[in-house]
Amino acid sequence: MEWPLTVTAVVFLAAYAWPILQPGLPRGWRVACGVLTAAAYVVFVVDYVVRVAVSQDRPRFLRTHVPELLVVVLPALRPLRMLQLLNLLGQLNRSAAGSSFRGRVAAYVASAATLVVLTGALAGLDAERGAPGANIETFGDAVWWALTTVSTVGYGDLYPVTVTGRLVAAVLMLAGIALLGAVTASLASWLIDKVSADDDAADDAAEAATRDDIHRLLDEVSALRAEVGELRSRKG
Amino acid sequence: MEWPLTVTAVVFLAAYAWPILQPGLPRGWRVACGVLTAAAYVVFVVDYVVRVAVSQDRPRFLRTHVPELLVVVLPALRPLRMLQLLNLLGQLNRSAAGSSFRGRVAAYVASAATLVVLTGALAGLDAERGAPGANIETFGDAVWWALTTVSTVGYGDLYPVTVTGRLVAAVLMLAGIALLGAVTASLASWLIDKVSADDDAADDAAEAATRDDIHRLLDEVSALRAEVGELRSRKG
Amino acid sequence: MEWPLTVTAVVFLAAYAWPILQPGLPRGWRVACGVLTAAAYVVFVVDYVVRVAVSQDRPRFLRTHVPELLVVVLPALRPLRMLQLLNLLGQLNRSAAGSSFRGRVAAYVASAATLVVLTGALAGLDAERGAPGANIETFGDAVWWALTTVSTVGYGDLYPVTVTGRLVAAVLMLAGIALLGAVTASLASWLIDKVSADDDAADDAAEAATRDDIHRLLDEVSALRAEVGELRSRKG
Amino acid sequence: MEWPLTVTAVVFLAAYAWPILQPGLPRGWRVACGVLTAAAYVVFVVDYVVRVAVSQDRPRFLRTHVPELLVVVLPALRPLRMLQLLNLLGQLNRSAAGSSFRGRVAAYVASAATLVVLTGALAGLDAERGAPGANIETFGDAVWWALTTVSTVGYGDLYPVTVTGRLVAAVLMLAGIALLGAVTASLASWLIDKVSADDDAADDAAEAATRDDIHRLLDEVSALRAEVGELRSRKG
Repeated sequence: MEWPLTVTAVVFLAAYAWPILQPGLPRGWRVACGVLTAAAYVVFVVDYVVRVAVSQDRPRFLRTHVPELLVVVLPALRPLRMLQLLNLLGQLNRSAAGSSFRGRVAAYVASAATLVVLTGALAGLDAERGAPGANIETFGDAVWWALTTVSTVGYGDLYPVTVTGRLVAAVLMLAGIALLGAVTASLASWLIDKVSADDDAADDAAEAATRDDIHRLLDEVSALRAEVGELRSRKG
Repeated sequence: MEWPLTVTAVVFLAAYAWPILQPGLPRGWRVACGVLTAAAYVVFVVDYVVRVAVSQDRPRFLRTHVPELLVVVLPALRPLRMLQLLNLLGQLNRSAAGSSFRGRVAAYVASAATLVVLTGALAGLDAERGAPGANIETFGDAVWWALTTVSTVGYGDLYPVTVTGRLVAAVLMLAGIALLGAVTASLASWLIDKVSADDDAADDAAEAATRDDIHRLLDEVSALRAEVGELRSRKG
Repeated sequence: MEWPLTVTAVVFLAAYAWPILQPGLPRGWRVACGVLTAAAYVVFVVDYVVRVAVSQDRPRFLRTHVPELLVVVLPALRPLRMLQLLNLLGQLNRSAAGSSFRGRVAAYVASAATLVVLTGALAGLDAERGAPGANIETFGDAVWWALTTVSTVGYGDLYPVTVTGRLVAAVLMLAGIALLGAVTASLASWLIDKVSADDDAADDAAEAATRDDIHRLLDEVSALRAEVGELRSRKG
Repeated sequence: MEWPLTVTAVVFLAAYAWPILQPGLPRGWRVACGVLTAAAYVVFVVDYVVRVAVSQDRPRFLRTHVPELLVVVLPALRPLRMLQLLNLLGQLNRSAAGSSFRGRVAAYVASAATLVVLTGALAGLDAERGAPGANIETFGDAVWWALTTVSTVGYGDLYPVTVTGRLVAAVLMLAGIALLGAVTASLASWLIDKVSADDDAADDAAEAATRDDIHRLLDEVSALRAEVGELRSRKG
């Protein structure tokens, strides 16, 4: 059930991005893109409604899928539907055999950050271009603005002035906080592992007893029991 | 004892927010709101004094409740009393059964961040609107400013110029650092769990001995002791 | 040996701060403050040289005390000598009995952050006030600038333009990164503890074997050995 | 095989930095520096191609060395080749005996951050100086801009306007996120160790059973088995 949605998201991304990147697109193409994005929107709404209908524990589903609900209900958050592609990243990631868990997390975070920055740049440019007092006018500027926002640097040379642009910025800020958290958490997890591995190598005798140790002990006790059993049988 | 305070905080929030959000409010309503916020203030002071009076270990209470003292003493920090509502969030959270500890922390952090941003926007707007050289003039702008501050992006398109506004900003910055820390800590805790679960699955024999292992060993030794006891009784 | 240095740091702080906070100070007082800060500087240099001379492992001492060396050698970093007061904070902290380790870390981080912000504001104001193109002109502005720098918000309404001011800003940025790291680390440590405590409570049987378990097992084996010993003595 | 590359990187750094730091360099020297940087570039390309050719698991090598590929292919990222010097730092670090693992990580992070800031300042200055609308015109300004970017403060007094300058800024932002993550992770790892050491000291009996405990138990069981063996031999 995931692949049709992923294809829909790719179609949505293309039909959404093309008129934004090509401001001089003829009217016909522009209308076609609008129809495609509207169709993709309908697919997402139907998917959400069906999943609510078939879910076992409906209150829990609603509670844990608030972002999907917001995307379906709020028109300003329409571009977020492109984040559906994160599922595709997740699946590519899972099928990439031979990597450590931490390596897969790093690959996922890097590709998700790239997708979020490009999506945010598209949505921000769409919202800001032509607005009175706006300063984000080209796709290059929009990518640069998205980068300074995700990294929480925020020079202030470019910033959104419309409500939609500021909503996009808020999503980028949240993504930036999550990105920073994920990088830090990966480094912390790696460092804690390394340091405890160092400690382990240092003092072997003070290490926690392992199942191997217990099994060796069990073997010893079993041999003892066998000897006692033999002692008794000789007597009888 | 918590619920009356929570109701007081909700009343305070409404009476505080209304005149700020409706600059054209008639004088009568404005006075009524002022009376209500003053009454709520008295309730908070009385609550603080009573809690100091009945606390077992007074020096420890004073030491661990410095924020409450500051809120009671400094007029500029009055809006912080709305953070009393964080207790309400905490209680709703505890009663939400069936969630993991980490899930409850995430829900609490998300709702606390939303409350802090909205409260900060209200207090910042109240402090800044009409001040000479100020650039935060509408509630929308104030929310946007609070968002850029909490996320530590700080574009600089909007910033406070009054002392009160800067105090509000300082609280928002602290909240931002705490938010970033909480997100990172949650991700780190999740990742460390996942990685150690992976390691556990990989090598079962090198795992720490569990109580189960020890109990199986104890059973073996007890059986052995019973055999020896029988051996002795046969002899007697 | 720490207390004389702490007193010197307090005197240095007072003699350094007074002329900065009171631009209209008479010339006599200004000269007296200059003499006091110079004297305190000599004390710090002598202390550093003596500690190098008496240290057991001199290369290691030099390697781990690079900040002290920079403070002694670079005139622009003179205000950093106030950070000597962090030692005082550390001692007050250690003597505060009855707190958990994590509580003491939190108290130390909070007071160190306050000291760094105030020191940075003083040093930044001293460097910037009167410089061509500078925008930090009052102590209030300087504190606000130090806050926006430490929190890494960086609105850009105020920023240093002199080399000394930018060095002070670099120290504040480093302090901000350390502050963010300390807050995050404390939250992560607390959360990891809580989650593992939850896990422990959930499944007791899968817990690691404790020394208590082993001692109960040892008692059982000892009793068995006593019985066998009795068996043998009966026979002899 | 690492040392020739390191020497090449040092030569590249010198030949790259000199014309940037000395805008008035005579044409002859300028050409010589250009030849040297081009030669160093060829060395890096050859090194990359050879390493791809001799690698055991070529797809894995390509996947884990994406940054090297980007540096070889994209001219705008040429200055990143200076980060080859990070390998030198890593080797110096490994040979620094007598330090803890965490100490070595801290030393590596500090020196890597310094190298990244200086390299970023050079590359940013090279890209921005003379561009229309650019505000980074001297090396001092460039270092200051790199600092505000790496620390994610981003005042916005200086910011890049060219595509190359923005690419350099993006690398600095990534380095800043990694720096913040590394500092936080080190503090978290230290704090988690300290807190668990505190816990260990507090309750010794509830500690995990160590290999020592198991060995003492094994000795006891072996002695018992010897006694039973003697019992049997007496009988025979």
